[in-house]
Amino acid sequence: MQKTPFKRIVQIFSRLPGLGPRSARKIALHLLQHKSQVLEPLIASLEEALDIIKVCSNCGNLDAAEQCAICTDSARDPQTLCIVAGVDDLWALEKTKAFKGHYHVLGGVLSALDGVGPDQLNLKSLPERLRAQNISEVILALNTTLEGQTTSHYIADLLGSFSEQVTLTKLAHGVPIGGELEYLDDGTITVALNTRKPFA
Amino acid sequence: MQKTPFKRIVQIFSRLPGLGPRSARKIALHLLQHKSQVLEPLIASLEEALDIIKVCSNCGNLDAAEQCAICTDSARDPQTLCIVAGVDDLWALEKTKAFKGHYHVLGGVLSALDGVGPDQLNLKSLPERLRAQNISEVILALNTTLEGQTTSHYIADLLGSFSEQVTLTKLAHGVPIGGELEYLDDGTITVALNTRKPFA
Repeated sequence: MQKTPFKRIVQIFSRLPGLGPRSARKIALHLLQHKSQVLEPLIASLEEALDIIKVCSNCGNLDAAEQCAICTDSARDPQTLCIVAGVDDLWALEKTKAFKGHYHVLGGVLSALDGVGPDQLNLKSLPERLRAQNISEVILALNTTLEGQTTSHYIADLLGSFSEQVTLTKLAHGVPIGGELEYLDDGTITVALNTRKPFA
Repeated sequence: MQKTPFKRIVQIFSRLPGLGPRSARKIALHLLQHKSQVLEPLIASLEEALDIIKVCSNCGNLDAAEQCAICTDSARDPQTLCIVAGVDDLWALEKTKAFKGHYHVLGGVLSALDGVGPDQLNLKSLPERLRAQNISEVILALNTTLEGQTTSHYIADLLGSFSEQVTLTKLAHGVPIGGELEYLDDGTITVALNTRKPFA
């Protein structure tokens, strides 16, 4: 029965983040059983997105233009650069409205296990950006996972020759706002204790 | 930024079985960041499936032909009809190779909560099939959930006028093969005990 196109869809879906073979099959079945209500609109939206949405040639953000709205916003400070692993991290930071500089999206983090080396990341243009934008601060906003920290250290080494021009910073660690100590891991509590601040 | 086509994709994905807004966003992002490796092949496969795969006009199975391979297989017994909720259940039964009759796919089960009434299910053609195929046994192979059982009873009522022609059966309940009593729910153990069989 209907092996080939169905199996191909399941195969592609099962490699998407958060999906496995079983959930991919459920989704593919649902799509094929609701052609006009779900499958056709989905294909149309995917095609539209394929046409319209581009990866910003400057920072790696997604937008409808060749250069994204953040890179072309003259109200933002081009001398502060925040390095993030993915566009979802960029969006999480943008939602806070706390950062008014530019971004650099790596498109992942170094991971020997997943075969991600420096060449697979958006790193080549980074030194050139530091020079062209005369950047004075680079904020490393990568996840506090082993891979994220490895990547942070790699970038710090990579930007070693800029040490006179650029200040390297990272996000502060500590107790999350609204976080309850009882549910926090030991590592976070230790860091929060060791970097305790004067009670103002 | 890139709101409309991206948001539309997220919206459609988040309504697929097993996905929510967060996982849908992760998937949409992944697709847009891997256009040539993932998004383009996915669109191509979906379009191919949209063209090729049809819902069998007879039983509701999915296949490349107007009438599916099961309905047109002359080696199968057209007088035994197995009623299932979805194509995935049909496939689960087919995998066992234990059933050699025809199927009737409802496309769901009755559910007041989800707004699924008899008109939303593939029920209208059922009496006509019983007559045309001169069916002698209908196996109700619906899930043992509240909705599945309600649907079974509804179909039993619906087919009341065929009681002389048709034997209505359901799948046996009991301890699954390889199942450990310790991990089984009380309901299954009670049914298995009350319908115990002679030890052959």
